[in-house]
Parts: sequence; C-alpha cells; structure tokens
Amino acid sequence: MSGEFELIARIRSALARRGDRVLRAGGDDAALVRVEGISATSIDAFVEGVHFRLATTSLGDLGHKCLAASLSDLAAMGAIAGEAYLALGLPPNVGEREALELVAGAERLAAETAVTICGGDLTVANELFVVVTAVGYAESEDVLVTRAGAGAGDLVGVTGRLGGAGAGLILLERKEHGLPVDVGESLIERQRRPLPLLDAGRALAGAGATAMIDLSDGLASDAERIGEESGVALEIELARLPLDEGVDAVAEAVGRTGIELAASAGEDYELLFTAGAAAKEEIERAALAAGTPVTWIGRTLEGDGVRLLDESGEPRPLQGWDHLARRSSSPRRERA
Amino acid sequence: MSGEFELIARIRSALARRGDRVLRAGGDDAALVRVEGISATSIDAFVEGVHFRLATTSLGDLGHKCLAASLSDLAAMGAIAGEAYLALGLPPNVGEREALELVAGAERLAAETAVTICGGDLTVANELFVVVTAVGYAESEDVLVTRAGAGAGDLVGVTGRLGGAGAGLILLERKEHGLPVDVGESLIERQRRPLPLLDAGRALAGAGATAMIDLSDGLASDAERIGEESGVALEIELARLPLDEGVDAVAEAVGRTGIELAASAGEDYELLFTAGAAAKEEIERAALAAGTPVTWIGRTLEGDGVRLLDESGEPRPLQGWDHLARRSSSPRRERA
Repeated sequence: MSGEFELIARIRSALARRGDRVLRAGGDDAALVRVEGISATSIDAFVEGVHFRLATTSLGDLGHKCLAASLSDLAAMGAIAGEAYLALGLPPNVGEREALELVAGAERLAAETAVTICGGDLTVANELFVVVTAVGYAESEDVLVTRAGAGAGDLVGVTGRLGGAGAGLILLERKEHGLPVDVGESLIERQRRPLPLLDAGRALAGAGATAMIDLSDGLASDAERIGEESGVALEIELARLPLDEGVDAVAEAVGRTGIELAASAGEDYELLFTAGAAAKEEIERAALAAGTPVTWIGRTLEGDGVRLLDESGEPRPLQGWDHLARRSSSPRRERA
Repeated sequence: MSGEFELIARIRSALARRGDRVLRAGGDDAALVRVEGISATSIDAFVEGVHFRLATTSLGDLGHKCLAASLSDLAAMGAIAGEAYLALGLPPNVGEREALELVAGAERLAAETAVTICGGDLTVANELFVVVTAVGYAESEDVLVTRAGAGAGDLVGVTGRLGGAGAGLILLERKEHGLPVDVGESLIERQRRPLPLLDAGRALAGAGATAMIDLSDGLASDAERIGEESGVALEIELARLPLDEGVDAVAEAVGRTGIELAASAGEDYELLFTAGAAAKEEIERAALAAGTPVTWIGRTLEGDGVRLLDESGEPRPLQGWDHLARRSSSPRRERA
C-alpha cells in the first residue's frame, strides 16, 4: 500500500490510549463516544505563517500548543475535557517523522489532561495546517459559563500571570537571530507549551463566574468579546495586570512595556472572567484550590467597549497595539 | 473593527437556524448541545488542488459537497445527523462574497438534512481548505454499524448506482476545455451535489447490515477498508455493479469503461455494506422504503483483500486503476 495508509496506521498506534467513554476511535467512518448531558465543542484552525512559524516552533510543541489552545476554550466554558480530533494538512517538507512528532506532542498533553484523541483526517497540502476539534462535557447547562452572562457592576478578574507568552515569543525570535537570551527559559516555556486551565475553569464556573473567556488573542481583544456578548462595558486598570516575572525586562529590551505585552500579545491562555462582588471570596478560594491565583483587574459598567485605564485613571487608547497581536488563534481576514 | 469580525458576523447571521438540541452556537468559546446516548463524530479535510479545483467547482457546490461527504460518514454508521462545524482557510482570491457562498451552500444542505451548523473557525491561508466536523447520534451502540462487523459468508451489497460522480467529473473537465457535453447534466449533478444517504444508512443498520462504509474513495479501495477492519476477504463481481445511466458512454469517450469508473472513481457516496443471507429480504425492503434500491454485488470469505472478478469469474488486478481515484476525500501522502 502507499505511504498514506502506513502513516495512518502509525498514528493510530500512537493514539491507542482510550478514555472509558470512547467506544470506537480510528478505523471507521466516525468515532463513537458514550455521551450524556451537555457537550461543548470548539474548533480551532492553525496555519503556518499565520498562527505559528516552524522556525520558532518544533513539531512536538506545535501539536501540544494546538491542542492546548482548543482545550483552553473548553476550560473557558467550565467544561470537563473529553475528546479531541486532529485534521492535518501536510506539505512536502513535513514528512512522516515530523507528522508523528506533531501527533506525539498532542498525545502527551492529551494524556496529561485525560483527553482521548479519537481520530481526524490527514491530507497533503501546500502549507502546514492543523485543525483541532475539542469536545467537553457538563452534567447540565447550569454549571457552564458563556461569554454572555456578565451584568453591569460585576468585577473583572484574571487567573495567573500575563505577558509571558508574548515575552517568550520575543525571546524565541532573538534566539532565531542569534541574539543572546540571558533570562527567560520559563517565559519561552509559556510560549512553547501553554497549559489549558481546565481545573481552574471548572472551579470558577462553580464559584459563580458570570462570564468567561480564555486569553488567546490578548486581554484587550478578548475583553471586547465578553463586552459584546454580555452587552456591557469593561473597565480595566492596567496597573493591576499581574505580570509574569521577567516580562518587563524582555519588553523593555525591544522598546515596549510589560503592560503592553500583558494586555495585547495574547497566547497566555489564562482565563478572563466576571463575577458579582458577593462571589469575590469564593472565587478566590476556588481558584487557589484549583492551583491558580486570581487578580481583580477591573469592573463592568452599563454601555459597551473596553476602556484600559492607566495609573492616573486616564483611558489609554487601544489603537497602535493591534500590531502586537500577531499570532493569535483567532480568525484573520484581510479585506477582500 | 476589522474585516474578519464583519465576516464572522455575516456568517453567524447566515447560520442562525438552530436545531432543538442546540443551546448555544457561535459567539462563544464552544458550542453547547444537549446530548444523550452515543455520539458519532467524523472529521474531513478538503484542500484545493487535492480534493477539488475551483475551475470545476463553484464555492456553493464546494460547501455543499464538503458537508455532504462528512454527513455521508454518519450515514455509513447508521447515525442520525446532528451538528456540523466548519473550519475555513481562506486565501487572498477567496473574498467575503465567496466565503459566504461556500457557507450558504453548506447551510442549504444542512437545512435539508436537519443539521445545525454550530460554529467553526476562519483563518487566512495561502490555499483554500475546508475542514468539516460532523456529529451524529444514536440511542445505543446496538443500532450503529461499524466497518468491523462482517463475517465470512456474508453478502456484499451497495445502494443506488455507481460511476456517476466520476463520469460527472470527466464531463466537467471537458466543459472546462471547451469540449461539447451532449449528455450528462444528471451525472454532473452527482459530481457537484452528492446527497448523503442518511435515511438509507439508518434503514440498513436497522435491517441487519453487519458492516458498512460510504463510497468516497472508490468501491475497490473502500471495500478494502471493510476487509481490513472485519478480517475478511471480499469478492466482488464487476458485472453486477449498478451503473448510473450514461456512465458507459462518458467512460468510453475517454478510453475507459463504465465499470472502471464505478469501481474506482469514487465520490458516489453510495453505501457499501455486508449482511448475512438471512437478512437479505429485509435489507432490500428497508432500503427501498428509505428511497434507494440495493444491489447484491458479491460476498465475503475467510482471508483478506478484495478480489474483483470479471464476467468470466477471473480476478481483475487492481493495479493500474489507482490513478483514477484522483480527488477522494481520503488522506493523501507522498512518501517522505
């Protein structure tokens, strides 16, 4: 037989691990899974040169990161991650070994997060693309959080620390150009291998978060999505943003500020959420118990849009920051 | 806002129709669907120049066909189609209007098949690609059919008529080159807008089919998949293949035979299945009641592989036919 079927056979054997729910995976027209309650399904497409560059991303890291970004969407709903499916477009420079590295990177993260990669599709293509379908579950709609539930007067919170993935990308690009990278292996790790906050997402949903989104495009842009879907304005105090250690130094070395990276560089895959003031302490406790601190960075108001306030309380315009959000997992369209 | 968000908003409004099961679609990190029983999930990737060419495929037809091919996978399991998700990679020559045509083509078929297109992703890309995730359901595993259930001594059957999609492609390519196309609008229609046999698939599953697959790559190749998964050999009598009207004439005009197209050209999206002899009449009745006749074309045996027998009962080698299976939805890999 031709190489395509051999590669499929090798991928199937690399993905032989199965969750209890999975009845049939691989080798059939469709994967079969036992389901009950509510399913949450997220689709993310990643294209070389748009969302990643192989010059700074290994195939193993790419597999990890594409799955992580998709599972992060499930985290942002408060869902329990279940299955994932991979569609790969493989150009001539990505051979069998490289394709298996990509799959192995995804499978390692899947094993860590108790996700079963149940199938997918392979095709030749002129450019490398990865499309991940991630499916999660919840017992009922009540335990899930959408982007649409924020009310005026809610607090705005964020998990963990920000700017690390953006700073890590700067460091990787410096390495690529042979420049010294004194600090920042942990920042590079945040860029290379983000972790989806599945436990934190469920904890926040259970503790009363009213709306939630994961930070893929950058805080300013993702906050707009909550505002649009919930019909509220968000006001965020930039000085409160919790920065990863070393972000300021990396940003300053390239003429930016740590706050800029934290607000706009994206790919941190932390969770941005809203909650009523009454839920404040329970949210803090639940998030810590799930392994991550939360920081309160603003509030919601009647109206629309996102206002980023500087230290003196003055609005800082969004314009001019867009160019920083270069490799998000969001759709990108030039005007036709 | 940038063009990307405008296009997403227009696509969301083109996909506003919702099945009862769907709780939230679009505008969030994940779509939410109420589920129970068994889910069947199929992923299919389609790339320009590999699976289709825009020279012979309109964007509306492409949207229809990609969804049809994915729903056909659900038909081959005997599942009830539920939701679909579209990931689109859009190159510069595919603008907003073209993207909306593609989505509208998919949405028309979704409406006809009671499927909800619940979401997806958009990205810029250098080549057009479409990845469809299709999700179907069944009350229990017992009412579904895999590729793995055929036993030695089963009959092999096929729905409908074969070769039409392959002949239609030949006619479209003749049109492209300015050659006359006297016959064959119905053949072209089979190529442009195949219909997934969802009702027939459920009927066959309910009537005792032991293994089933849809004919996307071509009968010879798809029959091998059943043989591999079930651990049996298949023997198919070529003279019994039910040809679409006009296939012989089109094939002969390009130096082939109708049987060759029926056995290897693919994209007919009919269902190939096996069944015990005791189920023969019930299978025939159930398929007719679901709107399609079946034809018995062979049998399964101990062993492996597929033998195609000519009219004198001699095996006809598969070699030399592979080049016909040009634009299947199956993975294609060159050796690295």
